[in-house]
Amino acid sequence: MSGIADVARRAGVSKATASRALTGHGYVSAETRTRVQDAARALGYVASSNAASLVTGRTRNIGVIMPYLNRWFFAEVLEGIQDALLEHGLDLTLYDARPGTVGRTRIFEDFLARKRFDGLIAVGLEPENRELERLLSIGRPLVSVVGDARDSSAVSIDDDHAARRATEHLIGLGHRRIAFVGGNVGAHWAEVDRRRLRGYEAAMTTGGLGDEVRHMSSEVTLPGGYAVSVDLLGDAARRPTGIVGVCDEVAIGAIIAARRLGIQVPGDLSVVGIDDHEFAEMFALTTLAQDPREQGAAAVALLLQHVSDPDSKPVELTLRARLIVRSSTGPVDRASSAIEAGTGSR
Amino acid sequence: MSGIADVARRAGVSKATASRALTGHGYVSAETRTRVQDAARALGYVASSNAASLVTGRTRNIGVIMPYLNRWFFAEVLEGIQDALLEHGLDLTLYDARPGTVGRTRIFEDFLARKRFDGLIAVGLEPENRELERLLSIGRPLVSVVGDARDSSAVSIDDDHAARRATEHLIGLGHRRIAFVGGNVGAHWAEVDRRRLRGYEAAMTTGGLGDEVRHMSSEVTLPGGYAVSVDLLGDAARRPTGIVGVCDEVAIGAIIAARRLGIQVPGDLSVVGIDDHEFAEMFALTTLAQDPREQGAAAVALLLQHVSDPDSKPVELTLRARLIVRSSTGPVDRASSAIEAGTGSR
Repeated sequence: MSGIADVARRAGVSKATASRALTGHGYVSAETRTRVQDAARALGYVASSNAASLVTGRTRNIGVIMPYLNRWFFAEVLEGIQDALLEHGLDLTLYDARPGTVGRTRIFEDFLARKRFDGLIAVGLEPENRELERLLSIGRPLVSVVGDARDSSAVSIDDDHAARRATEHLIGLGHRRIAFVGGNVGAHWAEVDRRRLRGYEAAMTTGGLGDEVRHMSSEVTLPGGYAVSVDLLGDAARRPTGIVGVCDEVAIGAIIAARRLGIQVPGDLSVVGIDDHEFAEMFALTTLAQDPREQGAAAVALLLQHVSDPDSKPVELTLRARLIVRSSTGPVDRASSAIEAGTGSR
Repeated sequence: MSGIADVARRAGVSKATASRALTGHGYVSAETRTRVQDAARALGYVASSNAASLVTGRTRNIGVIMPYLNRWFFAEVLEGIQDALLEHGLDLTLYDARPGTVGRTRIFEDFLARKRFDGLIAVGLEPENRELERLLSIGRPLVSVVGDARDSSAVSIDDDHAARRATEHLIGLGHRRIAFVGGNVGAHWAEVDRRRLRGYEAAMTTGGLGDEVRHMSSEVTLPGGYAVSVDLLGDAARRPTGIVGVCDEVAIGAIIAARRLGIQVPGDLSVVGIDDHEFAEMFALTTLAQDPREQGAAAVALLLQHVSDPDSKPVELTLRARLIVRSSTGPVDRASSAIEAGTGSR
């Protein structure tokens, strides 16, 4: 059986370099990595990962813990993480910690303590205090995507900025009655949703529309946005002419509700979201675009930095969403404005 | 530091039983498992999994390989698998093998060969021949969910039956011009889609509608179903009165297309899907319901059986979808029928 020494000899590199190339820990040029991998393949060399990890204390494995798999943002981040880990020859162990489940309790109480990973990426986790203590007590590098950074590296978009831009876009089109839909379910606020609401409020206040601020709570899902929008839009007397969705799924739910009620988008109602979800184009949704795969890849890069240098300082990486204007938003309807000002009828 | 012997003593069981309870391999009653886990927690005992796996040859880890994460069915199956694995104290290593990616190649060429798992679950994988050889050559138990069973256990619904029932439902409502939408993208057929098309064709033939068989290819996604349905429904002369979607996402895409074109559902068009997707209720979609979480859990049960008894025979588990009638389907419109028969105008 060929050993690492044989692989190194065939590739013309040191044993340490061959090991780095095969484990993905530490820097190796792409060219060298390819050469070492080719040599390993030619010799039929497969690292015995269990034995290797006992020696090096490294598992060649990264844990990913997230509360939802079946949502666009989370699935996209996960794919970005997986792609980046594959690049580095690392495995991905998934911990699906849905809030309120027995599984989540077991993950925090039993699974994480096994430390079967060199580092952990938490995506939108919003840990309770006790859970956060657990996470930090593991003594492995931690990077968050969305959610709380406290003493660890974090990747996110500037949520305040995204919601502000979305709202300003509607104000610029002449809208005054602009509602914010989504978040705050059962009196629980996810931090990301709360930040977006604040961005909306700030833009409304700056635009002289502080009195028009209106928030409708809803689950942060497409059906959640739909259900609340049916109520919101069904009340003709108080109907807004513009909606800022906390994310695209909620915004698309609002468009579907409008169509069902015979309300024209954008003739009677403009809708803007945050995400650039895979359905955004189909619904011609104006949105603040973010790239969750890029965020996943950035989280891996930060984490590997911390794994190779445990003393490296936490980094907060904040990305900016950019406005994509499609046809779900347009100038406010004059007749609606007239009603609003109490001077017209329709 | 407490060892397994201390845990066993405190729980009042043998070392072997304590080990089974903590590793999840082999049978232990729920009560005993709880007692052993409590004892382990009280003593601060954490199994050194790397050392354990070198001794037992067991990794306490199951690999899951799937081509998509960001689709309802796959995400639901994955959650079902994860829940069942957590129950057994097993980790989940995820391999995201999107077709045509470098990552997929690396997974098959490098990652699987490391055998860092006791068994593998392949979800909707559709491996090419070379990939299938790799899978089988690993020498670890394999269970498929959807997709090809060849020499390994498999879990799926009876696709032929589901599509047949969907089609019969429309025929029973008086529809004759019934199209099947979805699948066969770029001349590539996923087996599951092809089986569903055959079920539709069989029901049409049995119903004396063999001449009306009509298939529209589309990507098996909501936007894919939408795009094709805009074309299909835009052609008033050949417009069907009924659509069977290859899955709910495609069927919902058809409903969204109909709404955009001003075609009433179910007044002018009946639509039926297969899945009971999380959006099905919002669109009042009639569908053949399946339970992907249950399929994930069943795959884990079969796999653990094979892990504990390598000589156990492969099992094919086929589940039946059940019809849920909502308001996306209704009796065929008389006027449409009249046009169809060439006796009316509209």
